[in-house]
Amino acid sequence: MSGIADVARLAGVSKSTASRALTGGGYVSDDTRRRVSDAASALGYVPSTSAVSLATGRTRTIALIVPKVNRWYFGAIVEGVEQTLIPRGYDVTLYVAEPGSNDRESLYSTYLARKRFDGIIAVALEPDDADLERLANIGKPVVSIGNALSGVPTLGLDNVAITRIITQHLIALGHTDIAFVGSTPPTDAPAKDVDERSIGYRKAMNDHGLAVRIRSVPSTLTITDAYAAAASFLADAGSRPTGVVAACDEVAIGVIIAARRMGISVPTELSVVGIDGHDYAEMFSLTTVEQYPLDQGVEATRLLLSMIEGTDEPARRTEAVTRLVVRASTAPPRSA
Amino acid sequence: MSGIADVARLAGVSKSTASRALTGGGYVSDDTRRRVSDAASALGYVPSTSAVSLATGRTRTIALIVPKVNRWYFGAIVEGVEQTLIPRGYDVTLYVAEPGSNDRESLYSTYLARKRFDGIIAVALEPDDADLERLANIGKPVVSIGNALSGVPTLGLDNVAITRIITQHLIALGHTDIAFVGSTPPTDAPAKDVDERSIGYRKAMNDHGLAVRIRSVPSTLTITDAYAAAASFLADAGSRPTGVVAACDEVAIGVIIAARRMGISVPTELSVVGIDGHDYAEMFSLTTVEQYPLDQGVEATRLLLSMIEGTDEPARRTEAVTRLVVRASTAPPRSA
Repeated sequence: MSGIADVARLAGVSKSTASRALTGGGYVSDDTRRRVSDAASALGYVPSTSAVSLATGRTRTIALIVPKVNRWYFGAIVEGVEQTLIPRGYDVTLYVAEPGSNDRESLYSTYLARKRFDGIIAVALEPDDADLERLANIGKPVVSIGNALSGVPTLGLDNVAITRIITQHLIALGHTDIAFVGSTPPTDAPAKDVDERSIGYRKAMNDHGLAVRIRSVPSTLTITDAYAAAASFLADAGSRPTGVVAACDEVAIGVIIAARRMGISVPTELSVVGIDGHDYAEMFSLTTVEQYPLDQGVEATRLLLSMIEGTDEPARRTEAVTRLVVRASTAPPRSA
Repeated sequence: MSGIADVARLAGVSKSTASRALTGGGYVSDDTRRRVSDAASALGYVPSTSAVSLATGRTRTIALIVPKVNRWYFGAIVEGVEQTLIPRGYDVTLYVAEPGSNDRESLYSTYLARKRFDGIIAVALEPDDADLERLANIGKPVVSIGNALSGVPTLGLDNVAITRIITQHLIALGHTDIAFVGSTPPTDAPAKDVDERSIGYRKAMNDHGLAVRIRSVPSTLTITDAYAAAASFLADAGSRPTGVVAACDEVAIGVIIAARRMGISVPTELSVVGIDGHDYAEMFSLTTVEQYPLDQGVEATRLLLSMIEGTDEPARRTEAVTRLVVRASTAPPRSA
């Protein structure tokens, strides 16, 4: 098996230069780094990372914390982080735990306390004040996606503004009887996002002197839970709204599937708008405000790397990109 | 900041015993381990894992390799692995790369070569002979989910038998004109699974002297791609089958959504069966063979831990649990 001495010899540099080139522990020219790297590849040499880690204090590992993986939004973020870190030779340690679960406690006491990473990407994290202090005490750079954390650069949506815009879209079409379909916390979705979205809806309705109607999706904001809730609140034609502002696309899609099964025509009898730009939005002709969680994962990772490597002074809050896409799930109400 | 000496003093043991208890590097009684662990928690002491790793050769990290995260099957496996490892204090480094991608190459040359883990869980991995040799040379325990790898314990389905059973379910209802809706490799789904499933379908059709009809879903076996394919192959009433065996539930659901939009009644005009037990199966009243990827993630992780800790001689192939669930997407054909 080849050692660092063999790599140094093949690259024509000293052992200490070869070591610096492979571990990132000090200045080496790009040309030398490439020669050493090629020599290491040719010989199949990979440095022991435990030793590298002790020597440099760097782990070349990023901690990624998400409440769920098996949801479109969270899965897309994870893929964006992976796509950015793999080509740079970083490892990603993934920690999946929902707020309120047992595993959520060991997040701070074990996983984060071990500090086996150079920085943290926290998705939809809802730390209390004690948690925030523990997070700060770790002394590693943190970037947040979704929820704004005090003192931490955050990539997120202006949920109030976005929900106001899609509610106004229905009002502009002539709807006056518009329900917000969301949930009451706690859910496994980012509760703060949902709360902000219901505020945006309320504001738009209040601006136009229209009555606020909230329809709750029990438990989680998934397609299946929204479908079950819609099957119930759409049943009575007398109390049925003509427009639905869904807290997210998965809720909107659940409502559309329920409506179709019940013979309620979308958009003739019921207009539905969502927020997300979910993979299934086009298939259901859903009018929505798109966001791009995969790109958010990429952006957050780049920001974190610049903080780790000290190359940039990052902004404190970055507005994620969004775009209103009008499709065929919205139309004027029949009475208009 | 507290050191190992403080922990040892509080627990009433020697420094070397405290060190063994915290790192797993040698025998310590359960009672002592608990006392040391409690003392460490009380003092907020967490051992430096780089030092532990050099001392013990253990990283308390598991490598998890998946082609995608943002699909029901893969996402559920990741969650099962996480749920099993977090309470045991292990980290999970996640590596997401599709077969054929650039990142797939650095899987072997960088990620696996660094050996920053005690064992590997490989999901739907399709190594060639050279890859398999590299995998074996790493010298760490490996468990496979999905595809059977030579010399590696595998947790998977008997895809041929399962697809035969669901095809026979349609034949028993009186269908003779049954199409298999799947894909031709390469796709991002486990190609071997799909191939095995098409073989199971062919066998059942051949057993009954019925004509084999394959409908390809271009690109990936997702709901959206299957929806697009079905919108095309269901259009001509003359060539339309009365039964569809879908390669997986996502394909089946795409077919059902397309059929509903085209006014084709399921099951009166079209019976559809799937394989998976997807979260959406019940919402679409889908007859399917359920599998339980979250449980598979849990089982594979337990098996890997027993190999790492040397407590068990694992079986070479473990059949994953499945169950046929008959719902309302299947009925006798109208002509029967």
